Amino acid sequence: MQVSFSPADIQAITLPKRVLGATTEMVRGIAALGPAEPGELAFLGSAKYRVEVPATRASVVLLPLDYEGEPQPNQLFLLVDNPSAALARLCVRIEQMLWPKPAPGIHPTASVAPGASVAASATIGPLCVVETGAEIGERSHLQAQVFVGRGAAVGEDCWLMPGSTVAAECVLRDRVRLQPGVIIGSDGFGYEFVAGRHEKIPQVGVVLIENDVEIGANSTVDRARFSRTVVGEGTKIDNLVQVGHNVVIGRHCILCAQVGISGSTTVGDYAVLGGQVGVAGHLTIGKGAKAGGQAGIIGNVPPGAFINGTPAIPYMLERRVAVLQQRLPDLFKRFDALEAQIKKSSS
Amino acid sequence: MQVSFSPADIQAITLPKRVLGATTEMVRGIAALGPAEPGELAFLGSAKYRVEVPATRASVVLLPLDYEGEPQPNQLFLLVDNPSAALARLCVRIEQMLWPKPAPGIHPTASVAPGASVAASATIGPLCVVETGAEIGERSHLQAQVFVGRGAAVGEDCWLMPGSTVAAECVLRDRVRLQPGVIIGSDGFGYEFVAGRHEKIPQVGVVLIENDVEIGANSTVDRARFSRTVVGEGTKIDNLVQVGHNVVIGRHCILCAQVGISGSTTVGDYAVLGGQVGVAGHLTIGKGAKAGGQAGIIGNVPPGAFINGTPAIPYMLERRVAVLQQRLPDLFKRFDALEAQIKKSSS
Amino acid sequence: MQVSFSPADIQAITLPKRVLGATTEMVRGIAALGPAEPGELAFLGSAKYRVEVPATRASVVLLPLDYEGEPQPNQLFLLVDNPSAALARLCVRIEQMLWPKPAPGIHPTASVAPGASVAASATIGPLCVVETGAEIGERSHLQAQVFVGRGAAVGEDCWLMPGSTVAAECVLRDRVRLQPGVIIGSDGFGYEFVAGRHEKIPQVGVVLIENDVEIGANSTVDRARFSRTVVGEGTKIDNLVQVGHNVVIGRHCILCAQVGISGSTTVGDYAVLGGQVGVAGHLTIGKGAKAGGQAGIIGNVPPGAFINGTPAIPYMLERRVAVLQQRLPDLFKRFDALEAQIKKSSS
Repeated sequence: MQVSFSPADIQAITLPKRVLGATTEMVRGIAALGPAEPGELAFLGSAKYRVEVPATRASVVLLPLDYEGEPQPNQLFLLVDNPSAALARLCVRIEQMLWPKPAPGIHPTASVAPGASVAASATIGPLCVVETGAEIGERSHLQAQVFVGRGAAVGEDCWLMPGSTVAAECVLRDRVRLQPGVIIGSDGFGYEFVAGRHEKIPQVGVVLIENDVEIGANSTVDRARFSRTVVGEGTKIDNLVQVGHNVVIGRHCILCAQVGISGSTTVGDYAVLGGQVGVAGHLTIGKGAKAGGQAGIIGNVPPGAFINGTPAIPYMLERRVAVLQQRLPDLFKRFDALEAQIKKSSS
Repeated sequence: MQVSFSPADIQAITLPKRVLGATTEMVRGIAALGPAEPGELAFLGSAKYRVEVPATRASVVLLPLDYEGEPQPNQLFLLVDNPSAALARLCVRIEQMLWPKPAPGIHPTASVAPGASVAASATIGPLCVVETGAEIGERSHLQAQVFVGRGAAVGEDCWLMPGSTVAAECVLRDRVRLQPGVIIGSDGFGYEFVAGRHEKIPQVGVVLIENDVEIGANSTVDRARFSRTVVGEGTKIDNLVQVGHNVVIGRHCILCAQVGISGSTTVGDYAVLGGQVGVAGHLTIGKGAKAGGQAGIIGNVPPGAFINGTPAIPYMLERRVAVLQQRLPDLFKRFDALEAQIKKSSS
Repeated sequence: MQVSFSPADIQAITLPKRVLGATTEMVRGIAALGPAEPGELAFLGSAKYRVEVPATRASVVLLPLDYEGEPQPNQLFLLVDNPSAALARLCVRIEQMLWPKPAPGIHPTASVAPGASVAASATIGPLCVVETGAEIGERSHLQAQVFVGRGAAVGEDCWLMPGSTVAAECVLRDRVRLQPGVIIGSDGFGYEFVAGRHEKIPQVGVVLIENDVEIGANSTVDRARFSRTVVGEGTKIDNLVQVGHNVVIGRHCILCAQVGISGSTTVGDYAVLGGQVGVAGHLTIGKGAKAGGQAGIIGNVPPGAFINGTPAIPYMLERRVAVLQQRLPDLFKRFDALEAQIKKSSS
């Protein structure tokens, strides 16, 4: 990051309630309290790191209002309502410097078919393909080597990163962000077993990605057999996640990396699936349900439930079972001894 | 889907044995019985949804010959030998409308090396790369941004979707379908540990994909160390699957999403691996074996076996163990009580 | 592989200590002892295959110095210090024939922005994108359809295979090899839950890939929230692996296929994670620690530990628990019987 902020710049962005100390350093990076060096800004986002503040070498430190220590020489403490939020505002500023809004227009190396519709304020980057009948909305940005298929629709203010794909007839609403390599609209995985062979069941439905969804690098969302696969408004999906055909994911869900959801399953609003969770097909995950990492879900999950393990069971039970499993060698030994004792005493 | 069929069109495609009722609606979509609306076609593919037929609002319903109910006003019932098969025929027709066969030829933005051989009836879409010595067979379609490396061979009637890669010297036989982002021929993962460093073992074998294989989005198949990695005829692979070097997968297998198969393992014909299954290296999975989702296979699997769990054991045993595990807290409690009682009575 | 070596060529490359027999065949391929055919070279890399040597039909066999058998007619035995190493030298030769070093220069279809810096000896292949401020070092090779973003840096002697992506400001040091479809620098997965919605936390850090790292097909490495995500020197990563934001991976580690590492976790030098291992966030994996396939790591791991299972526990304990779990049905039966007997005798 080739960024540089003066202490005054930082104050103008973070709006501290109290200011302690001062520094002559320019801020050229952000780091955690421990590894931070002079010229970097650090912050106290969680009480558990409070002990690291007195020793940090950061030139500027964002702290909560109730922090009581004093800065070292040539160090600036900024006490703010919410250090994480203040840092986020700073990062937004850095983001704008690093990835400035591209100029509208179609790069000369892009291949935009006649019959595609690209808004005047949209940006089609180098070596993108936009096929006939596709629509790209206002201010949307196809960064580079993006593919938007025949009849697909990309809404307004979307950002499709390098190598992402939106296959034919699929729809992204507004402010959707696809990380690099995302595939929207691959065929659902459906075959009928006929005469010793798997015959393909045509997959002629689509994918609908609602407003404000973000999808992580190299994740895949299959098109429906018919009708549509849906990812609801505000849902965030991490990298390498698989969403099967006809899945319907609700609003504001969190799917961590490498989750897999089999066909026709419904996931309720605000559900959270940990990394590598697998969900069988044709299930219903209730609103606000949570599953721990690597859980294997093979039955419906009630709203608000917190589950874990394979097969997934209530979290507290699973934690207890996991502990007791480690005591199985001991239990078997004790049982063998007890059984022998009984046998002996009753003989 | 901007499709539209008259009731007469639908009958011409689905060839009903009996017709009940009539509708004036055009069919503009397909949906499940429950959510279907007027203007949509629904079908009864599984007896468990039979109760939903009387209330469906679909304008046209495909039903099995033994269905006994009557349609509502402005509703058409078509009784056919196999509703799923009839629907499939309709979907094939939709598929042809949505993705018409592209015209043969090489898009002006594609990069086809001198010394590559492209059949006259093949289609090389925008921004594809075909390197020297590569061969593309009759009627095959490289859709867009596809890479076919030096000396690789793509057979007849293949469809390589956007961003798929066939690396140097790898071979696809006929009617192979690669979903977007598939990688065929990445290097196998092999190193020798020499003097504190992992030295790369050259991976100079190839990948052979037999006839009628389909591979899901962003899946990866590694080239062999030497000789070849093979995916057998008619096998179907879902999204985000990893096939290691020198793996040999038989004919007509099913590998669900996110399966990983380590190097040099052999998978027999008609095997079925559920989602997220992991298979260790140098194993033999027998013909027709089945593994449940997330199973972890660390030993050879006999033909026809059905296994589950990590480490994978026979399915029925695993199901029973899974139930008993949940009773471990109770068992420990009962055991502690019994042990105390014995101790007391014997003291 | 269209390769062909005379027996004399093979001897010149493998430098045998002893030579037995002779063959008139040219070597046109490499195969395992069992399936090898005349015209192929086989080798004995592991003592367990020693019994297969007498029956192999390979024309040339690489054997350890202590091998005592005799070749068949028209068969050449080459006894070498280390058959695997000798084979590796042969494979390096094949590699050079199959993938000759490309000529330096920028392909006319590539899109290299003004303000990007490409070394004179580097090769930018067809349909690559190099954005402004990016630097490509001496002898590095962007094969085809590669993306290198604004301000990113690729060191010397790197090989970026088709469709790989290095996002803005990320850094590859020297001799880094990215297999096809790798994504370096996708956004970290970070949101704050505000007023019922997940607000994106800007991810403005970078990724640093140190010398001699290799990353497998379609793997993803997220950029840091701030500061950087690091993959240490000599570490090898297999296909479809996810490395979260702010993760720091040490030197000479092995991450097998489909591993997932959550944000801010540190992995020590020489650690080995088996296929599909999942690691929770903010953990420390000690130097030289090993985890078996599918392990789920939810706590810190001491240096040198060998762990297995979900949740991961010491390997030997996990193996024992796994065996005892299968005896749970028997244990419950025995316990029920014992309990009944006690009850009866004490009543």
